[in-house]
Amino acid sequence: MDLTFRRFDLQLRHAWAIAADGPTAGKSICPVVFVELRDRHSCHGLGEGSPSNQYHESAATMAAFLGRVDARRLSFTDIAASMAYLDSVAPGNYPSKCAINIALVDGAARAAGLSACEYLGLKFEESRHRTSFSIGLDSPDQIERKVQEAARYPILKLKVGGPHDRENLAAVRRAAPGKILRVDANAAWKTREIALENIEWLARDPLIEFVEQPMPADVSLADLEWLRARSPLPLFADESYHSARDVSRCVAGFHGVNVKLVKTGGLTGARDALTAARAAGLKTMIGCMIESSVLITAGAHLAALSDALDLDGNVLTTNDPYEGVRNQDGVLSFRDVHEPFGLRVRLR
Amino acid sequence: MDLTFRRFDLQLRHAWAIAADGPTAGKSICPVVFVELRDRHSCHGLGEGSPSNQYHESAATMAAFLGRVDARRLSFTDIAASMAYLDSVAPGNYPSKCAINIALVDGAARAAGLSACEYLGLKFEESRHRTSFSIGLDSPDQIERKVQEAARYPILKLKVGGPHDRENLAAVRRAAPGKILRVDANAAWKTREIALENIEWLARDPLIEFVEQPMPADVSLADLEWLRARSPLPLFADESYHSARDVSRCVAGFHGVNVKLVKTGGLTGARDALTAARAAGLKTMIGCMIESSVLITAGAHLAALSDALDLDGNVLTTNDPYEGVRNQDGVLSFRDVHEPFGLRVRLR
Repeated sequence: MDLTFRRFDLQLRHAWAIAADGPTAGKSICPVVFVELRDRHSCHGLGEGSPSNQYHESAATMAAFLGRVDARRLSFTDIAASMAYLDSVAPGNYPSKCAINIALVDGAARAAGLSACEYLGLKFEESRHRTSFSIGLDSPDQIERKVQEAARYPILKLKVGGPHDRENLAAVRRAAPGKILRVDANAAWKTREIALENIEWLARDPLIEFVEQPMPADVSLADLEWLRARSPLPLFADESYHSARDVSRCVAGFHGVNVKLVKTGGLTGARDALTAARAAGLKTMIGCMIESSVLITAGAHLAALSDALDLDGNVLTTNDPYEGVRNQDGVLSFRDVHEPFGLRVRLR
Repeated sequence: MDLTFRRFDLQLRHAWAIAADGPTAGKSICPVVFVELRDRHSCHGLGEGSPSNQYHESAATMAAFLGRVDARRLSFTDIAASMAYLDSVAPGNYPSKCAINIALVDGAARAAGLSACEYLGLKFEESRHRTSFSIGLDSPDQIERKVQEAARYPILKLKVGGPHDRENLAAVRRAAPGKILRVDANAAWKTREIALENIEWLARDPLIEFVEQPMPADVSLADLEWLRARSPLPLFADESYHSARDVSRCVAGFHGVNVKLVKTGGLTGARDALTAARAAGLKTMIGCMIESSVLITAGAHLAALSDALDLDGNVLTTNDPYEGVRNQDGVLSFRDVHEPFGLRVRLR
């Protein structure tokens, strides 16, 4: 098996900021790392990882991990053993493990003459999977402009936790009075009382569907339970849900979880995290970082396991080198995708 | 037991037309009949029926049936026996049976100190149940104006099957490019080929969620199967689904069913029709006619059994004498409803 990887800098249409970034200026470039695997039978697979500042990951930490991987220990025919080997190389490093896992599933599915979702035992239903379109932290004027630009998208996700939340929501409603809105606080509200006050304010808008990660991931279980018992809106865990291991804490503190492939180490980990959450009675959402169509399309293959999708990282960029699942006014579709097997992704 | 009933003429905000009405002018008044039941323990219940031209029902046929009911045979403590008695009075007459059934459930739930949904073993979840807002057949200009007026509603239901469908959809998209849309053909397309051609045209709009009742209810099973196998959009049965007895035909020809209380003879019949459809793998929708808040609120109590709601008949009227479940920008809510028991409806 041969493993190659390369860094690629995704350019953002608008500078991007969320509460968890702290008081830094928004960034306009997001590096990702693409991985390709090829075995001697000329079976090949493509994957991607998107590192996160929040977890002290970068293209450099990904390169360091990927450089330590002995590709001979990876196999398209035994993905579980391949992942166990990667865990033995080093803990963490989920974006790198994610990139390799996606490439393994892509190759295995291609070899089997299946799409990635079929390979994973899932079905992708056309016309059924809508993703939100994200509006990052910004000034109210910029928010209003961005919401106008997003007129074709039926569901928006608004980042909150900045200094202008009230003005920003008012700006959204000026531009889009009847639009379904999800709200993501990215752990901005430091106490349960502040979180509840903000959620009660948000609940006055009847079209807000849920609130993601109101408090930091390290608050006490008692604080999570306190907030869940009082919240007038459903709460989704993001930073608090990394893998199936976090299910019991999330059942106590949330109504649903946001699963991202880069948090769970790829497609098989995300499938397990989604399945475990559903089995525990939690609603599920598939989310993303700023990512190219490789990661976004991988997420779309798991759509059958989700109640909500937030897979818009690629449409926020201007130089996506790949094309895969189509985002047609917020509806994901493989209808006009010519590549039939694996991830169904190809170079533009 | 004492039974009283009275006709009430609901005034429509806009004249209303659907394909099934044929080439008649839209109507601007819709008569409904309210039923009240009161027993000697001063337990009382309120219900409503909305008669449909399509099924040769009117306020007069309802009055004729209700006049034949021996109210001594009705009981808040045995609703099943009460309904069996009503079926023995005459077949059909579902709007009248619906009005009595709702009044029986209202009274029984009040007597038990429960809301109607609790009485039926269901839970109403706040912030989760969105209803569409319906746009009747009209000229493209009028459609555009109605869609602008409906800016606060996140999901629209467009009636099609008239002469201006293509211009009407274009008018909707001028006024609301990013809005989720459901389409209701009300049995307008007389052959499977015409239906498919229209559905394929609709499917080019990625935000159309499903199509209701493309063909007449009396087409052959083979035609239903033919269309279901080819349709690029999910199909919902309305005129083809009256009660749990129609499930097997609907499984063959549709992806989901629209259950209306006036079609099923009230709350308990609708509950059975929804449960049977889900058990057979069909998606479920709760729909309505032009109705006051009594019938709409009754439908809302069943929301837990639905995947989609179309409960907007009351907001299309200007003289609803009752208030019950709130429609806040298309989201149904009992939050500010002071009446705790039964239907949770009261006179305005």
